[in-house]
Amino acid sequence: MSGKITTKIQDRIALVTLDNPAKRNALSAAMWQELAAVFGRLSADTELRCVVIRGAGQDFAAGGDIAEFPEVRGTREKCLHFHQVTVGNALRAIDQCLHPTVALIRGNCVGGGLEIAAQCDLRIAAHSARFGAPIGKLGFTMAHTELANLVARVGPAVMLEILLEGRLMGADEAYRKGLVTRVVQDGDAEEEALATARRIAAGAPLVARAHKKLVRRLAFRAAPLDEGEIAENFAFLDTEDYREGLRAFLAKEPPEFTGR
Amino acid sequence: MSGKITTKIQDRIALVTLDNPAKRNALSAAMWQELAAVFGRLSADTELRCVVIRGAGQDFAAGGDIAEFPEVRGTREKCLHFHQVTVGNALRAIDQCLHPTVALIRGNCVGGGLEIAAQCDLRIAAHSARFGAPIGKLGFTMAHTELANLVARVGPAVMLEILLEGRLMGADEAYRKGLVTRVVQDGDAEEEALATARRIAAGAPLVARAHKKLVRRLAFRAAPLDEGEIAENFAFLDTEDYREGLRAFLAKEPPEFTGR
Amino acid sequence: MSGKITTKIQDRIALVTLDNPAKRNALSAAMWQELAAVFGRLSADTELRCVVIRGAGQDFAAGGDIAEFPEVRGTREKCLHFHQVTVGNALRAIDQCLHPTVALIRGNCVGGGLEIAAQCDLRIAAHSARFGAPIGKLGFTMAHTELANLVARVGPAVMLEILLEGRLMGADEAYRKGLVTRVVQDGDAEEEALATARRIAAGAPLVARAHKKLVRRLAFRAAPLDEGEIAENFAFLDTEDYREGLRAFLAKEPPEFTGR
Repeated sequence: MSGKITTKIQDRIALVTLDNPAKRNALSAAMWQELAAVFGRLSADTELRCVVIRGAGQDFAAGGDIAEFPEVRGTREKCLHFHQVTVGNALRAIDQCLHPTVALIRGNCVGGGLEIAAQCDLRIAAHSARFGAPIGKLGFTMAHTELANLVARVGPAVMLEILLEGRLMGADEAYRKGLVTRVVQDGDAEEEALATARRIAAGAPLVARAHKKLVRRLAFRAAPLDEGEIAENFAFLDTEDYREGLRAFLAKEPPEFTGR
Repeated sequence: MSGKITTKIQDRIALVTLDNPAKRNALSAAMWQELAAVFGRLSADTELRCVVIRGAGQDFAAGGDIAEFPEVRGTREKCLHFHQVTVGNALRAIDQCLHPTVALIRGNCVGGGLEIAAQCDLRIAAHSARFGAPIGKLGFTMAHTELANLVARVGPAVMLEILLEGRLMGADEAYRKGLVTRVVQDGDAEEEALATARRIAAGAPLVARAHKKLVRRLAFRAAPLDEGEIAENFAFLDTEDYREGLRAFLAKEPPEFTGR
Repeated sequence: MSGKITTKIQDRIALVTLDNPAKRNALSAAMWQELAAVFGRLSADTELRCVVIRGAGQDFAAGGDIAEFPEVRGTREKCLHFHQVTVGNALRAIDQCLHPTVALIRGNCVGGGLEIAAQCDLRIAAHSARFGAPIGKLGFTMAHTELANLVARVGPAVMLEILLEGRLMGADEAYRKGLVTRVVQDGDAEEEALATARRIAAGAPLVARAHKKLVRRLAFRAAPLDEGEIAENFAFLDTEDYREGLRAFLAKEPPEFTGR
């Protein structure tokens, strides 16, 4: 068995772990498939408020499991299927997860690991984390579907630097270049990621879900919103949480949101 | 009376003040309407060279006036009208103002205040300024029209952080994340904003107006320029200021521009 | 003779020099034409691995040669031709060069110099380099074709600051604002640019070329990739370098790429 995905839920926060530490959590085809399934299930659980994704041990994820490549990507057909379906389903499942997502990044966040982190909403990095995609040294091109995600989120200049130079960059540089949300000392990274998840969980969940969906819609699709999408944007007017939010604000009390 | 907008003009620079200090300059519906009217008038005054916008007292603006919300946004129709017309007209008037605009940001720059600052061309922040839109705690979603402006200017990653986490960020972090043009000590903010306005005012005004319009056109609309827009881009060839600019450069003298 | 472009090739790395030091390497029409021709020739040389572009002497390039403007841009027709053809061909040749490009930036990187640097893939800046486009002081607007390139690469906020305020910014500020890839001490800039070129040259050249082309395609054209473009993205499967890359990785040896 080449790696697995584990899930733990506590206080409405799901903790998903990429678990293949002997290979720095490199993702096997089986792990990509499990990752898609896990995020599909978490997305359907409306009791949740936030999902944190991390790697087991010292690293976030060191990319794909290259030992498998001759087999799983041996022909053009297999290669297309691997990237568009196997990897693609997992990245789409993270991107479209109903709940806000936080990547907790320690150690190597490389290749497929970088692609996973980029699909999350926030990225909390340990100071010693390292980022990159040195696939020029492996002789292959990043799949266009995956590169499109990264270019849209990270920008062309940083992606060209990462891909052409093949260097790994440290967390401080990644922060300056917009790759991560914040950088903390190594020993504080897990607590900061969970504190971030708790801050997210304290807000009105329907609002967080609407913001998550709407920011992606506005950033990554050019077509103007249709009537249904505009109506959805104002759906909060009929919620209990909106009344509670205004009441609590005007009463100077902390709100208690129920997701209704 | 719930707040007002005041205007002062000196040396061809207009100073617009969001003035509702008892509510940290939270914008009432009346203030949004006045803001649209004020920017409409300033935009028509071709003697002007730059507009600086600031808040009265300690803050830039703390957002909308939430006490009014049950009334002005009580139904879906009212809510749509409030955002698309009342707020929308003001933000569009700032965005499309003929003259370059500088936001002078001290204290809270939150929600609607952040939206106003983002429509300006440059943002000078005091060190203690704070930025955010913690509306998840209020139980409502940012209007899609306003979020579209912010996503286009600030990017999806920073907007997701701001909206999902609900934290206010300091000026240094806002600078690193591209939200502001520069950060200065609190006591220097007003002078730096005015010095910036004077630097802008020293250039050829027709060129500044053309650059302001053209950068927005290229950044926020995908369609290629039409013949008329291309001709407009080269209209400088027939101006006195172009001849003056070349003459002064070659004579190593400071230019004297007239806006003709 | 108003300036020239020189080229030197060593270890598969081409070094292109903007050479008009009496005018801080301001680009004459003849230099723009030569620049287009030089990049056309370098692009056709598949033995190359990287192109470094720099200025002679203390500066990168201080913009266009303004003394020529009354002649080369004297009428609207000449002006359109100058920007769309003379300058446009050079910028397109750099942008579409087959090989990765590195700008080595010392001293002034202004106007047309900034436009050249922005077309490169990476930008290595000396600490004392200065960036800007103070053409508002000259009374003319940046050509829409050139501004479109800069807005797409640098973003609207930074371009508005540069154009409206007319200030030159130092390398540290340019780095924070995403204008350059990294900043090093003045005495280290040339060596760092060459070291960057060598890192690029050490990767598989077909992969670097594919990444360079694909990042631009995804970032700057909205249309989805067609079948031919998708096939091109997986062309690495049939290369010797892909087999060599996987072999070397699994054998924990450095790869030896041939570009086949």
